[in-house]
Order: sequence, then C-alpha cells, then structure tokens
Amino acid sequence: MPAQRIAVIGGTASGPAAAAQAKRTDPGAEVVLFEQGPHISYGACEMPYFVAGEIEDAKRLIKLTPERFEQTRGGRVLVRHRVVALDPPRNRLTVEDLATGEVRRERFDKFILATGARSLLPELDGLDAPNVFPFRTLEDAAALRAYLDERAVGHAVVFGGGYIGMEVAEALRAREVRVTILEPGPGVLHAYLDDDLRPLVEAVLQRRGVVVRRERAVALDHHPGGTVRAVRTDRGERIGCGLVVVAMGIVPNTELAAGARIRTGETGALAVDAQMRTNLPNVWACGDCVEVERVIDRKKVYAPLSPTAFRTARVAGHNAARRGRGRPTRFPGVTGASAVRVFELEVAAVGLRLREAEAAGYDAFAATIRHVSRGASMPGAKPVHVRLVVERGRGRLLGAELVGEDGAALRADVLVPLIREGATVARLRDLDLIYTPPFAPPLDPLIVAAHEAARRLRP
Amino acid sequence: MPAQRIAVIGGTASGPAAAAQAKRTDPGAEVVLFEQGPHISYGACEMPYFVAGEIEDAKRLIKLTPERFEQTRGGRVLVRHRVVALDPPRNRLTVEDLATGEVRRERFDKFILATGARSLLPELDGLDAPNVFPFRTLEDAAALRAYLDERAVGHAVVFGGGYIGMEVAEALRAREVRVTILEPGPGVLHAYLDDDLRPLVEAVLQRRGVVVRRERAVALDHHPGGTVRAVRTDRGERIGCGLVVVAMGIVPNTELAAGARIRTGETGALAVDAQMRTNLPNVWACGDCVEVERVIDRKKVYAPLSPTAFRTARVAGHNAARRGRGRPTRFPGVTGASAVRVFELEVAAVGLRLREAEAAGYDAFAATIRHVSRGASMPGAKPVHVRLVVERGRGRLLGAELVGEDGAALRADVLVPLIREGATVARLRDLDLIYTPPFAPPLDPLIVAAHEAARRLRP
Repeated sequence: MPAQRIAVIGGTASGPAAAAQAKRTDPGAEVVLFEQGPHISYGACEMPYFVAGEIEDAKRLIKLTPERFEQTRGGRVLVRHRVVALDPPRNRLTVEDLATGEVRRERFDKFILATGARSLLPELDGLDAPNVFPFRTLEDAAALRAYLDERAVGHAVVFGGGYIGMEVAEALRAREVRVTILEPGPGVLHAYLDDDLRPLVEAVLQRRGVVVRRERAVALDHHPGGTVRAVRTDRGERIGCGLVVVAMGIVPNTELAAGARIRTGETGALAVDAQMRTNLPNVWACGDCVEVERVIDRKKVYAPLSPTAFRTARVAGHNAARRGRGRPTRFPGVTGASAVRVFELEVAAVGLRLREAEAAGYDAFAATIRHVSRGASMPGAKPVHVRLVVERGRGRLLGAELVGEDGAALRADVLVPLIREGATVARLRDLDLIYTPPFAPPLDPLIVAAHEAARRLRP
Repeated sequence: MPAQRIAVIGGTASGPAAAAQAKRTDPGAEVVLFEQGPHISYGACEMPYFVAGEIEDAKRLIKLTPERFEQTRGGRVLVRHRVVALDPPRNRLTVEDLATGEVRRERFDKFILATGARSLLPELDGLDAPNVFPFRTLEDAAALRAYLDERAVGHAVVFGGGYIGMEVAEALRAREVRVTILEPGPGVLHAYLDDDLRPLVEAVLQRRGVVVRRERAVALDHHPGGTVRAVRTDRGERIGCGLVVVAMGIVPNTELAAGARIRTGETGALAVDAQMRTNLPNVWACGDCVEVERVIDRKKVYAPLSPTAFRTARVAGHNAARRGRGRPTRFPGVTGASAVRVFELEVAAVGLRLREAEAAGYDAFAATIRHVSRGASMPGAKPVHVRLVVERGRGRLLGAELVGEDGAALRADVLVPLIREGATVARLRDLDLIYTPPFAPPLDPLIVAAHEAARRLRP
C-alpha cells in the first residue's frame, strides 16, 4: 500500500494530539499539521496563571515547538498556514501560506478537523481598541500580560462571569488591578453552580475586591488615542476602566467544515459519532469544534474542555490512520467534570445541575450539606459544601457541585465513576472512603451528602 | 410490647454509635452502654496530632461526654464499668463497677459487642516501666503527651513501622525527640506499600531524622528508678533511649465473647454476617473486634479502621433494635481504602497489594508511574506516584498505592467505587477526571497509571 496522506487542520491542542496519534497508529503515514497561528500545542488553561505571574515564562505554556513536534512525533508542521477550503470528496484542500500569501492546493487521503473555537465577542463598536483583549489564544494572553507589564492599570472590566471570567479576574487582582465583572445572566459560574452555593463564590469575589454587576455592555467610550476609557451598560451606567477583557464564552469554528458540507449538530458544533467520524467518509473531527455525548442521558452537548479535546483527538487520529487494521477506538462520552479556582475557593461540578436534570426530563431533587474537609480538630480543616442532584424514586446520582477552600475539586473526581455508571446515592453512601485526620474527616463530605440525599429519598 | 433492653459493651467508637443507632431505630428501647475506661466516644485517630501539639487540647478529641451522650442520644452510659461475663442464652451479663468494686448481674434482651481491640505487646520484661507507652487509648496518648511536656526526652524508640508507628514518629519529631523505629518485617508501611514505592517513605523518614532499623527488641535495660534506659535488639545492639512507644499493631478483644461461646473467624476476630449477627441469635458485634468482608474477593479480613467501626456499629445497632420491623441493614464490605501522613508525604492504599492479589489466587501484575499533582507549571505541583495492581487478561483493577506530597490521598478515593464494582483499568482510563492547572494536570496521575496498565495488558 502506498503511504496515506493525512491532513490535520488546527494546531492548538487536539490537532497535535491527533497528528501524533495518527503517526503512532500508522508510522508510514504522511501526516501534515496546519496551524494558522505561530504556535502549536500550548497550555491554554494555564494562561490565566501566566497573566497573574504565577507562571513566569510564556515558554512554559508551550508544550512542543513545531520543530520538536516534528522530531519527536514524526509529522510535518506548517505554522502560519491557513486552510481556506476543503474538498474531501476530491481529496484536496486549499491552504494559504500567511508569510508569503501563496495559496496552493494539496492532496490528502484523509482529513482531521481540529479547528477549535474562538471567543464569543459582543456586538460593540470599537472592540479592536488596543486595550480590549479577548482571552482565547496564547497571543491574547501574551498581549494582556505585556500590556499589564508596561502600564499601571487601575481598573479593568471583564465581560463574562464564567470560569474564564473568574480566572481572569483573579489574575488581574494578582496584578493589583481592580476588577468589575459584567455578567448579565443568572449569576457567576452559572454552569457550575445553582443558586444555593453561588453566594459562597460571590462572597469571596467581594472580599477580594471584584465587583460583579448583573449588566451587559452596550457601548464603549474611547480616548482620542483609540483606547477604551469606559464601558456603558444596559442600565445606563458608565464604568471607567483602563482595560477590557472579553470572556463571554466560545463558539466552535465550523466555517471551514460547513464549506465542505460537513454537518453540525443541534449544539452548533460539528456532529461526530463515538469514533469521531463526521458525515463524510474521509473526515474526522475532534477538540473544541465538536459536540460530544453526555453519558448520563446520551444527549449531545457542547462541552469544550481540555481533556475532552485530547481524548477525542486520540480517537480521531487513530481511527483516521488505522486503514481497517485493528479495532476502531471510541470516545466514551463525558460526565462534564470540571473545576475552577476562585481565589482561595475550589469550585467543582460534575454531571447535571438540577435545572439541567429537570430539562432532561428527570424527576429530580437536590440535597445540599456543609461538612469539613479534614479531621475537624486539624489545622487546615475547612468547610466543604456538597450539593447532589438525585433522581427521585431509585435515587440515581445525576450530578454534584462542590465548593470549599480545601479538597473540593479532587472530591468531585470520586463522583465521576459513579455518575458514569448510573449509580445511586446509596452506592455513594456505602463507599469506604479514606479517613485520616490530616486528609479527611471520619465521614467524608461526600458520604454525608449521600446520607442526606438518601434520607430525603425515603417516602 | 414491653420496652426491650439492649446492652452495648464497649464505648470508644463503635459502641456509642451502635447505642445511638439502636435508640434511633427503637426510641422506646432501654439502651445501656458499658465502658470500662473513663471516656467514651473519642477520636483515637487524632491522638498522634494531639501528642504532636497540632491539636492543643485533649478535650477536642472527646466527641461526646457520657452526660452529653445521654442527653442527646438517649441511652444510658456507665463508664468505669467492666462487663466480666456474658450469658446471652439466659439474657444476662455480669458487670463490675470499677469505682466501688461492686459486681452485679443485669438482664438484657439483646447484646451488642463493641469490645474493640488492644495493643499487641512484645514479650519483654519490664514493659510496665513509666516511660513505656502503648498507643491505643486516650489515656495512653494523654500519658505520653504529659511525659513529653514534663521532661526533655532526647531519643525515643518506637516498636513497629506500621501507620501508627509513622504517626507516632512524626509526633515525636514535632516534639524534637530523635526517633528510632524498630520494624523487623519487610519494611515500613508494609500493609500500604510494596517494595517499589517504599523507598519514598524511607527517604522522607531519613531526611526528617527518623532511623528505621530492621530489628526486633529482645530486652529492655532499666534505670535503678525503673524507667527504661535502652532497648536491646536481636542483632545485639543496645539503643539508648528516654522513651519507648509500642505500636506493633492491635488484637481484637474477644475474650468476653469467647466465654459466651461466640465464635471467632479465621482472622481471630469475631465472625459476623453482613447484618453484624454473631452465631448467637441475640448477639450482634461491631467495630474493631469483628472481621469484615473484603469486597474484591469476598474474603473475611481483619481491617480495623475507624469508618468501618462506625458503619458496622450502625448496622449492628439498627438490626439489634428493629424487632422485625422494616428491613435489616447490611454492611457493604470494605475495599480497605486507607491513608497515612508521613511528614510531608501522603501515603494511600486501596484494595490489594500485589502479594495479596497473588495470595488470593489472582494472576496479577503491577504498573507503577510517576506523574504530577497539578498543572506542571503551577507552584505547588509535586510528583505523585501511582502503582496499580491489575488482574491479567481482562484487566480488572484489584488495588492501588499512591504516594506524593500533594493530592495522593484524595485521589485514592476515586478508585474506591471502581474497585468495589470490579471495574477494569480501561474504565479508569476512560474517566473524564477534572483538569484545571491549580488542582490537576491535563492527564490525571490516575489516568496515566491506567494507560500504563492498559498498555501492559496488551498481548
């Protein structure tokens, strides 16, 4: 068989992982990775800590340079190359070399789309001002940090109170910038927390000098030089600021795929099966441009998280490269386990919020407890709040939220296998989790929560 | 129905829990708790941190005084009362009031044995010296702390390198006492760790000024006043010391039960079923005097851990009190999840060691990896070592060991549901555990370990 040629489009996270897997699966394949930006394979999740100064050097965020990738993984990497059109039925793509402006066609047998996502931007005039920063790429983060390194910024406005908004707010506070978050939705960290635990986060934000306003930006005021000087909101406020960060969420990059008649699902992201196949036989997709299956109810969701990007990438890379040999691999779906640090607070969520469970058709309730992270007498013991979302009747565990200053995030991981297998709260209650005063109390907060949920299940 | 009378014998941990549960299940029952010591319901696991000074006041270790127990739980508590004989077929017991010396018989319908365990002591003369301390009861801990508060002790010898030995060594170092551990077995923390991770613990002990000798004490040398001045070992060494702590393990207190023809199992602890019934129809048992079922292979084991004591107590208390109403509750068995802090190191184990798996008849192997506890660039990120014990063939996860300075203990909890359900390492590999740089790396150490084990499973 002649060597197969595989094009991987997009180089941030899932692209390099897919390309590397394709080479592992078929070392004889010619794998070419196209990336329009200057970098591949960087730790986007670490960017807030780079801006904050917790991570000193931007180089630490770059996991692999193109050269190193080619040496160790074996594919070819073309940075500053933008794929402008795809024609999978004719086995070709059109690519522009951004350095030279040259546009050429190349022939490939297979295509892996790893086109990722981009910042959702508000519809405002003057958003291209030099002190307005989206927060998506390494260049975004580097530009924000450079701006902070060069100027004294007194006050910043962050658009969006999701997890990126939280991380950016914390990073800016670490740089001694006062912060106002504009979050017009039901509250900060809406995807993580229902109303009853959210006040814990709001209290920390307030204590740490972050103001949250339930408002939306409707206009920007600019200095004569072009920088933004104030944000005007839908309540008629004018908030003076030296900096704006846009962290309103992301949208999948599906335009290239759409041009090739590759289908999107209900979420707007690319529709793929568990093997990461699109509707075209020689096209796979992975990472932040695809939707995935939520294991709880098998619903397709857009849940762009880094581990999902890497896992779907390995599945896509293997299946694209395997040429009918061995078994196809499958992506096992997600429970949606995720965590964010908000100053001293750990906030974690897994599975469904109560409103999501109800929207998915479950007759469900939530049980919330407060317990302690370690032996109560130990120094370092802190409150841990656990909220379980439980199906009435048989008591299936559908989701959980955890908030606390100590041991909240890792405890959420314990629930991942349980939620994945459809376990009941009785199963959680029966786990013999570790007890030793330096790490956990006699009854772990998870067990206490399971007891409370089981108690409320009884008729 | 007349009120039933239930005797609970033993008041440290499981006794009060069983008595309280019995009162909850049948509020009309007369429940009497007999305890030979002066205290009930104390946190034995917190004693090392009390000796170290991390917990200042011994009162914080006492969860409930007898008075408070009677007020809030409703049973009657008789401290300094020793039950000297049991006659369940005739519904009676014989009890000695240790304050007055009075011995009397009392009539009960049901009996719950919570007689606990005692320190295993070496066969040495002069063990009753005032500077030799077993480490089992609150009085032991209080005596040791008082001794340290009153005298400058330069060097202590600890008999036993198990988890109590580790905790006592750390507590003594916190009091600026040099420590030598005598552990004649295969190494420290033998129940937690196989040979390949043990050097991590040994290195920390050495760095922290704790000497471990693979020797056994064969004699004690005493000062004229009666205190021990040196320990002589089976290698002919003479180790001068100002203090000896005996932490060689514990043995279940079964003598009272034996006198009433209540059976012990192969482990030497009392044999009970999942309802915590002994072989006598009106006798239940719980806590550190019983053996329990290991869920992995349904083998009966003696695994005296605090959460097990509390859980078996609630099962015994409920079933003893329920009078045929409702359903009996069942103890769900143990995976043996446990953790210990050794200075800056977290050491955790769950399920079987490789040698235990082999002894239980499994064709098994172990896969060990070293990864990182948080995003690698984050301050606070530390190495985490994970060793998985896996059944060959289908890849069932049988056990794990985790060692590291950050996030090792709580990660072991994630494996508890998996081991309990007989899951494979492929199931572990497929979990979407949390990734966020402050708490976990992109691939959690558990996932990395599962990948390594799965790789080694392939033919």
